Amino acid sequence: MDYPKRLQRLRRSMAARKLDAVLIRQPDNRRYLSGYTAPDHGIAETSGLLLILRKGPSYLLTDFRFREQAENETDGYEVLLYFDDSLKLLQKLVFDHGLNSLGFESDYTLHSNAESLFDLGGTLSVDMVPLTGFVERLRLIKSEEEIERIRRSVRLNEQVFQNVFNALKDTGTELDIALEIETEMRRHGAEGAAFATIVASGAATSLPHAVPGRRKLARNAPVVIDMGLILEGYCSDMTRSFAFGTADKKYTKLHRLVRQAQLAGMAAVRAGVSGREVDSAARQVLADAGYGEYFGHALGHGVGIAVHEQPRVSSKNRKKLKPGMVITIEPGLYIPGWGGIRLENMVVVREDGCENLNSDTTWLDI
Amino acid sequence: MDYPKRLQRLRRSMAARKLDAVLIRQPDNRRYLSGYTAPDHGIAETSGLLLILRKGPSYLLTDFRFREQAENETDGYEVLLYFDDSLKLLQKLVFDHGLNSLGFESDYTLHSNAESLFDLGGTLSVDMVPLTGFVERLRLIKSEEEIERIRRSVRLNEQVFQNVFNALKDTGTELDIALEIETEMRRHGAEGAAFATIVASGAATSLPHAVPGRRKLARNAPVVIDMGLILEGYCSDMTRSFAFGTADKKYTKLHRLVRQAQLAGMAAVRAGVSGREVDSAARQVLADAGYGEYFGHALGHGVGIAVHEQPRVSSKNRKKLKPGMVITIEPGLYIPGWGGIRLENMVVVREDGCENLNSDTTWLDI
Repeated sequence: MDYPKRLQRLRRSMAARKLDAVLIRQPDNRRYLSGYTAPDHGIAETSGLLLILRKGPSYLLTDFRFREQAENETDGYEVLLYFDDSLKLLQKLVFDHGLNSLGFESDYTLHSNAESLFDLGGTLSVDMVPLTGFVERLRLIKSEEEIERIRRSVRLNEQVFQNVFNALKDTGTELDIALEIETEMRRHGAEGAAFATIVASGAATSLPHAVPGRRKLARNAPVVIDMGLILEGYCSDMTRSFAFGTADKKYTKLHRLVRQAQLAGMAAVRAGVSGREVDSAARQVLADAGYGEYFGHALGHGVGIAVHEQPRVSSKNRKKLKPGMVITIEPGLYIPGWGGIRLENMVVVREDGCENLNSDTTWLDI
Repeated sequence: MDYPKRLQRLRRSMAARKLDAVLIRQPDNRRYLSGYTAPDHGIAETSGLLLILRKGPSYLLTDFRFREQAENETDGYEVLLYFDDSLKLLQKLVFDHGLNSLGFESDYTLHSNAESLFDLGGTLSVDMVPLTGFVERLRLIKSEEEIERIRRSVRLNEQVFQNVFNALKDTGTELDIALEIETEMRRHGAEGAAFATIVASGAATSLPHAVPGRRKLARNAPVVIDMGLILEGYCSDMTRSFAFGTADKKYTKLHRLVRQAQLAGMAAVRAGVSGREVDSAARQVLADAGYGEYFGHALGHGVGIAVHEQPRVSSKNRKKLKPGMVITIEPGLYIPGWGGIRLENMVVVREDGCENLNSDTTWLDI
């Protein structure tokens, strides 16, 4: 990955905001800018933070447990160790470099930590500047190298689905299948699941965020599987819906309808079109068929280092899509008492259309 | 679980701080006070928050995806739904109930969210009060019902270790073994691993936080396995160290030394003794044998709904242990180039000593 280029873009943003330095604590942003992969064990147990100077060095501040990993994984960063608390070390660096302004992530800094930063700013006369989406904005547009990683992540996700799908049995519960999926992901080299795998059967399919339970798959009843994995730092996200056994007429009709909505959404994707317009293209298909009220969520979201990131593909996003954005297209119908169907693919926004990253069509066209 | 009693204790704390209500967002605290188990997908994607009035109802604010789960899992809470953002709903409730002061968790509220709260406070003339450890303090002392759950969690953790240990082969890599452990946990009903399982072999055992890799277990080389699971909402945490094959003399000597340190730590535990004193009892054994410099971390930590919680069993904690606290005792030696050994048990602090929750002694006494 081209970390120097990413840092160059970051420093341009810093110049525009007149910031002498920024402090990066959010694990995805940290990884994006440095290659350092250590996760946090919750926001209160950080495994390190980046201090990047506009005109000066880039530091990775961490504790002794992570020193070796930090040094091995990063290049161009000076790894400095703190004990217990990073604040004293930070204070020294801010003072030594004579910084006048320091940006921090408002959306990933705890109130208590921000208070400490403001205190430090008061003591040293440093302007502490809360930032929103500062690194996330850089992550919006993926390089071809990133897209290739996402492609591999999607491909492995499809392969895992196939493997598990081909072994589906009457005796398996939702939980068994979810566990088998996540184990299979890791057996094939994934860092792990990108989110808790959804396996829902029967009436539970009408809940968009069903939790896998002890229910066995019922014959001829609907099933929804929503799964994603992390490979080489990049996420995939895919949903397949099918009837376990034979689909009845209503199921087949609605499944085809959702697929039509998905194809309409994908057809609308290209650079210069807004998230709202893409959402609307798919939504219209469901509304025209009289099922508009059963599609209650946005059509999609960005995917990259995080499985949910910008841009939103929703009626609220009037911003134009740009080449290199990677998004999901996932229309669904959720009918209480009957069940639900959701179909989710990932696509890359291109100048003149979209590149579909999913090649497996099992249970897309029925 | 006795949620009414927990809420009663919370309301007593609220009275002492003159708070009309508190807002609880941290998932472990939320679960402790309500039984609601939904996890957050990162701090920025909350699955709900509690608004608990000192003299009035308790609310669980969430969105439509979690309604069913929220209603099924909680008792005595009124479930209210918001769209996109909880702030408007919160504003209405604060206004309707005429609240004058509202506490929020400084250690689990993002700077950006805190800013919104302060803005709201300004508009409605409500005093917004940052709180630290407000619910965590209640969680320090476990009820016998909680201890019984922790006991079951520890027992299952030991059983999983036994199953995997008995099947260890030359051909397995650290990663294979870690995956097998985590799969076995879930097969037996655990909600999942309490933290990323550590399986380290050879020289990697000298890193306290080794990440499992593609290394195969080498014959007669040291192995460290640090594992924990979540069962019925409560965590376990255990470390075993052994030589895969035959231990040489040095290994056997040091292993016995670490075990002596552990026994000394456990012998020091009882109500009224400080975390510092317990830490020191174990540390002294290693220091007396000339290995003090190779034990770089604290002796232990509290375990409950979170796998790392208060109290710290470290030289920095001068507070007295109280009956019903559950802590780990985990001395270790980490010798660069040679390897490491860590032995970790969990104990309950009792009036006159401690109750050892681990009954499996495989690889404790060699």
